[in-house]
Amino acid sequence: MTLPGRFITFEGPEGAGKSTQIALLAERLRSAGEAVTMTREPGGTPGGEALRDVLLNPAATWSPLAEALLMNAARDAHMQTLILPALQRGETVLCDRFAASTLAYQGDGVAPETLAALEAAVVVRRPDLVLLLDLPVAEGLARAKARSTADRFEGRRLDYHEGVRARFLELAAKDPNMHCIDAAQPQDDVSAAILEVMRAHYPDWAALP
Amino acid sequence: MTLPGRFITFEGPEGAGKSTQIALLAERLRSAGEAVTMTREPGGTPGGEALRDVLLNPAATWSPLAEALLMNAARDAHMQTLILPALQRGETVLCDRFAASTLAYQGDGVAPETLAALEAAVVVRRPDLVLLLDLPVAEGLARAKARSTADRFEGRRLDYHEGVRARFLELAAKDPNMHCIDAAQPQDDVSAAILEVMRAHYPDWAALP
Ligand SMILES: Nc1ncnc2c1ncn2[C@@H]1O[C@H](COP(=O)(O)OP(=O)(O)O)[C@@H](O)[C@H]1O
Ligand SMILES: Nc1ncnc2c1ncn2[C@@H]1O[C@H](COP(=O)(O)OP(=O)(O)O)[C@@H](O)[C@H]1O
Ligand SMILES: [Mg+2]
Ligand SMILES: [Mg+2]
Repeated sequence: MTLPGRFITFEGPEGAGKSTQIALLAERLRSAGEAVTMTREPGGTPGGEALRDVLLNPAATWSPLAEALLMNAARDAHMQTLILPALQRGETVLCDRFAASTLAYQGDGVAPETLAALEAAVVVRRPDLVLLLDLPVAEGLARAKARSTADRFEGRRLDYHEGVRARFLELAAKDPNMHCIDAAQPQDDVSAAILEVMRAHYPDWAALP
Repeated sequence: MTLPGRFITFEGPEGAGKSTQIALLAERLRSAGEAVTMTREPGGTPGGEALRDVLLNPAATWSPLAEALLMNAARDAHMQTLILPALQRGETVLCDRFAASTLAYQGDGVAPETLAALEAAVVVRRPDLVLLLDLPVAEGLARAKARSTADRFEGRRLDYHEGVRARFLELAAKDPNMHCIDAAQPQDDVSAAILEVMRAHYPDWAALP
């Protein structure tokens, strides 16, 4: 789908620094005069935020298949009512988690073909650029724990999170538009690495301050 | 999946009398000494009931595809945590709406192959008997309106509901376990028609009072 805006997603485990970096990048782009829409998944729309609560509630017992269905339902609403209209207006959309997170988190218990079929039905416009913030599992969980109490995903066992990390890295290895950033570095170095990828991917942003 | 219990679903438009008839049948079966689990969709589990609110909220703007994904997520939880365990215990499960409702209501905007793929992934045990309570659209909507204010589905245009009715009738025509009951009759006649189907389907219930 050819729409004038740019669609950039941030992926990676809990505590990788996605929310931190996306806010810094939005600030930087806005200072350079770009129109930016910052959003997140699951969420981004009133219905999607209601689903976010349903999904992350530690008391719920969704199977991996149900999780994948819920995530894709929220993504469909997000895509149709927020992302596509913003891209149509020529804005840069920065999204905190997107389709790769579903493949990484629900890839544990759902067949890859089922996940691919759901993605094909829902993701009518793929991101132009995916920034994967990668870091050792223990480090990400320690950062997330320092920040707030665990949600349904953060509370899972360490080997689940190791699987998530491995699936993210596999996706990045296969997708030329998905770039792996070392997120264990100090915050400023992560920002610099992200900026370097952005400048290389979008030539007219080569001079981005 | 061979489990000892019986799985009977009630389908049909708003106001057909599903909730009324299911309660009468549960009462009748319980008097005859049967263990009965009465449940409904979307809903039936805490997570499913939370999704029911998300789905039926008149302010939400889910696409037909998102609706189908949400319905199937709720159905997966319902199947795994409530229906299968009850059937395993040998109970008779009476369910107010099930998979046929998704085909009838979301069949409007979602490709039949997509709906079939979702059903195949989620419905690991199909109902033994499906009772379709059929009546003219205007009559069902008038009954539902007299009962309460319209939810997201009830508020739709008449031709949408005509499509729902037509899809239900098509399903019944193809599925030998799905029986069409004239629900425009007085309540006692509807009950009698349901009982006749039940007695024919389950020989050991031939003498059901
Ligand atoms: N490069 C970094 N080094 C150390 N701590 C960081 C770094 N980036 C972010 N943090 C801190 O880690 C925690 C998680 O960051 P956050 O941006 O919320 O991650 P995410 O959104 O990926 O879960 C926050 O407390 C944040 O201040
Ligand atoms: N056979 C019938 N004739 C007339 N009214 C009926 C009949 N069955 C049910 N009703 C009434 O119609 C309304 C809708 O019935 P309900 O069982 O709630 O339908 P559903 O669950 O299919 O939406 C209720 O007010 C109910 O009392
Ligand atoms: Mg975050
Ligand atoms: Mg009812």
